[in-house]
Amino acid sequence: MKTVVLKFGGTSVGTIERIKKVANIISFYKKKRFKVIVISSAIGGITNDLIKKSKLISNNFDKAEYDSLLASGEQAACALIAGRLNHLGYKSRSWMAWQIPILTKGPHNNSRIYKIKKNQILNFIRTGGVPIITGFQGINDEARITTLGRGGSDASAIIVAKFFKAEKCIIYTDVEGVYTTDPKINSKAKKIDKISYDDMLEMASLGSKVMQPSSVQDGKLHKIDILVRSSFKKKSGTLITSSKNSLSNQIITGISSTKNDSKVTIVGVKDKPGVAASIFKPLSLNQINVDMVVQNISLNGKETDMTFTIKSEDLKKTQKIIKDNKKISFRKLAYDKNVSKVSIIGVGMVTTPGITYRMFQALAEKRINIMVISTSEIKISVLISNKQTKKAVAALHKEFKLD
Amino acid sequence: MKTVVLKFGGTSVGTIERIKKVANIISFYKKKRFKVIVISSAIGGITNDLIKKSKLISNNFDKAEYDSLLASGEQAACALIAGRLNHLGYKSRSWMAWQIPILTKGPHNNSRIYKIKKNQILNFIRTGGVPIITGFQGINDEARITTLGRGGSDASAIIVAKFFKAEKCIIYTDVEGVYTTDPKINSKAKKIDKISYDDMLEMASLGSKVMQPSSVQDGKLHKIDILVRSSFKKKSGTLITSSKNSLSNQIITGISSTKNDSKVTIVGVKDKPGVAASIFKPLSLNQINVDMVVQNISLNGKETDMTFTIKSEDLKKTQKIIKDNKKISFRKLAYDKNVSKVSIIGVGMVTTPGITYRMFQALAEKRINIMVISTSEIKISVLISNKQTKKAVAALHKEFKLD
Repeated sequence: MKTVVLKFGGTSVGTIERIKKVANIISFYKKKRFKVIVISSAIGGITNDLIKKSKLISNNFDKAEYDSLLASGEQAACALIAGRLNHLGYKSRSWMAWQIPILTKGPHNNSRIYKIKKNQILNFIRTGGVPIITGFQGINDEARITTLGRGGSDASAIIVAKFFKAEKCIIYTDVEGVYTTDPKINSKAKKIDKISYDDMLEMASLGSKVMQPSSVQDGKLHKIDILVRSSFKKKSGTLITSSKNSLSNQIITGISSTKNDSKVTIVGVKDKPGVAASIFKPLSLNQINVDMVVQNISLNGKETDMTFTIKSEDLKKTQKIIKDNKKISFRKLAYDKNVSKVSIIGVGMVTTPGITYRMFQALAEKRINIMVISTSEIKISVLISNKQTKKAVAALHKEFKLD
Repeated sequence: MKTVVLKFGGTSVGTIERIKKVANIISFYKKKRFKVIVISSAIGGITNDLIKKSKLISNNFDKAEYDSLLASGEQAACALIAGRLNHLGYKSRSWMAWQIPILTKGPHNNSRIYKIKKNQILNFIRTGGVPIITGFQGINDEARITTLGRGGSDASAIIVAKFFKAEKCIIYTDVEGVYTTDPKINSKAKKIDKISYDDMLEMASLGSKVMQPSSVQDGKLHKIDILVRSSFKKKSGTLITSSKNSLSNQIITGISSTKNDSKVTIVGVKDKPGVAASIFKPLSLNQINVDMVVQNISLNGKETDMTFTIKSEDLKKTQKIIKDNKKISFRKLAYDKNVSKVSIIGVGMVTTPGITYRMFQALAEKRINIMVISTSEIKISVLISNKQTKKAVAALHKEFKLD
């Protein structure tokens, strides 16, 4: 008998009717003779409500108490699922992370699981039981509750799949899977049947909200097949797997675009060794994430222009830090909030020449001006005016035969 | 430095503003140099919402899962209180019952605390910290969460007060204390400053909703002074203490009345040895609580009438059980839903003759007919028509100088 881990997100357990549906999904796998382990998030909306409460209590809410506060949500959801399965005649019980225990290291609000004591769960499964485990949380060495940060229930599911040697980890969520691009931006977006971890990592880090990059990374690291599918519709979903298994004719798997980037240009910076470090070190120390970077060729050997992108929410802070920076001198600080990063992603491009050219050509034909280019082995990103995002995504979607 | 246990009920932590107020109350005791231990219920309404959800999931919700489900409420409340105290500059943290642990025995939904491991809490208090502990719950020998039943947070508070040798256990609630009678029934009702455990036990078991009888019993057993007071108004509250401390000039401390009783009469029961047992055993086996019982004197030695009271919600079930009872034969089964039990309570009556007479006389003067009488050492109850409840309470309130 194979083991499967089923993870249900907040919207999947958002109402009583949905919890009943979740129990039916679990029942389906039991009838197919799988050993089933379930991970659940908190009932949708509960966690946000608790976060709101914590902010009203204090603008500097204690991090450990914050974890205890938030972790209460999963407990209720798991008890309700187990209660429903019992009602349907299945042997089931809920486990809070501390009862297993699931052990974590690292800071409150952002810890990571390093060990799961398996005995209780294994015994329960052996006798036909379905354990329902709280996602998103664990306990640290002091037996205090910790949480795993954003998307933490996915992380729990994948680590549990690893520890229990599950054949597959199925993430039940409110979307049908991973799409070639955002369906809101391009109506021709199509669901991807299979995608490699690497492609998914690029998709995730570029704004596809289906999964957090760290969970995809865990899946890749531990070689866990991840199936993302809808709790509401009987559709096949998207399998995230190794590139060996996901090889297809598709060179480009997906196209992503961002909304909230800003471009900053420092005009006429005195060009001397270490100038880039002088600019970027204080930004990094202030938790500002710098994305695309371009340094113009220094024509006279004395001055250069430095252009980079950041999240728009960091723009004001960035401007202040640069202006206050005593280590550099420059003529002008320019910025542009109306930009968008459009990327094409695909493991296939490694072995296929001409992708860059085809991308630039497709954009040029639509008279789309490229401001900045950045490439990795399996991704090419360009910065363009955000007025042209939709047009660019459509052109690329067509060019790389994703329509 | 003396230790005080402060317990806050669901309405006391019902909103963010109220949680801030709770933190201020705790701060007050800290400033007075008390060692403070806090017990909190779940945020008001949360527990009922969870109960409702469990019923929608299953009409026979698993008892162990029910405990896990319900226990999640206190966790959030405690984290918020601790978070607020931290915000105010106090050292504080929340403890869930399993973290201490608080150990229970007995069935799910209705367990009782038998041990509290004190080390962590004592160490924290010694360093000036304020522990905030989840009420209503513990864990059993299998490390599963258990709850203590109705009013369980009061029970937690009193047992914690016992284990930590607290000078006093203060129950913060939404009423100002214990009243001589229900203010809704008699506007002349007055708050009682001091009441003995025994009087309070009678008050509680007779329908005063301030505290559950079992918690008062625990207080009595462990000699814990219990102060019941309002979280919202700065009033002195009611001290529940030993009769030695609570002795006052008052012979009668309070008057209570019930709303939901029914009177059942089995007319013409064949009178033989064991008939009462034959009637009441099956009721008891079906969890039906029989209160006042009167058996008429058997005039001819062959037949008798048996009258007793039960909760009105049990009436239908009771009728069915009696009709199906093969061990008794009778002529008629009569019932009356329009009855009310009115009681006078007071340790003082033990040493004061003539109380019974004064009670009956006061009711007779108002032409109130007494159907059934039942007495204990410190309580006299009469069953009357529920149309006369208000009049009866007023007459007795006046007769015993509680106005």
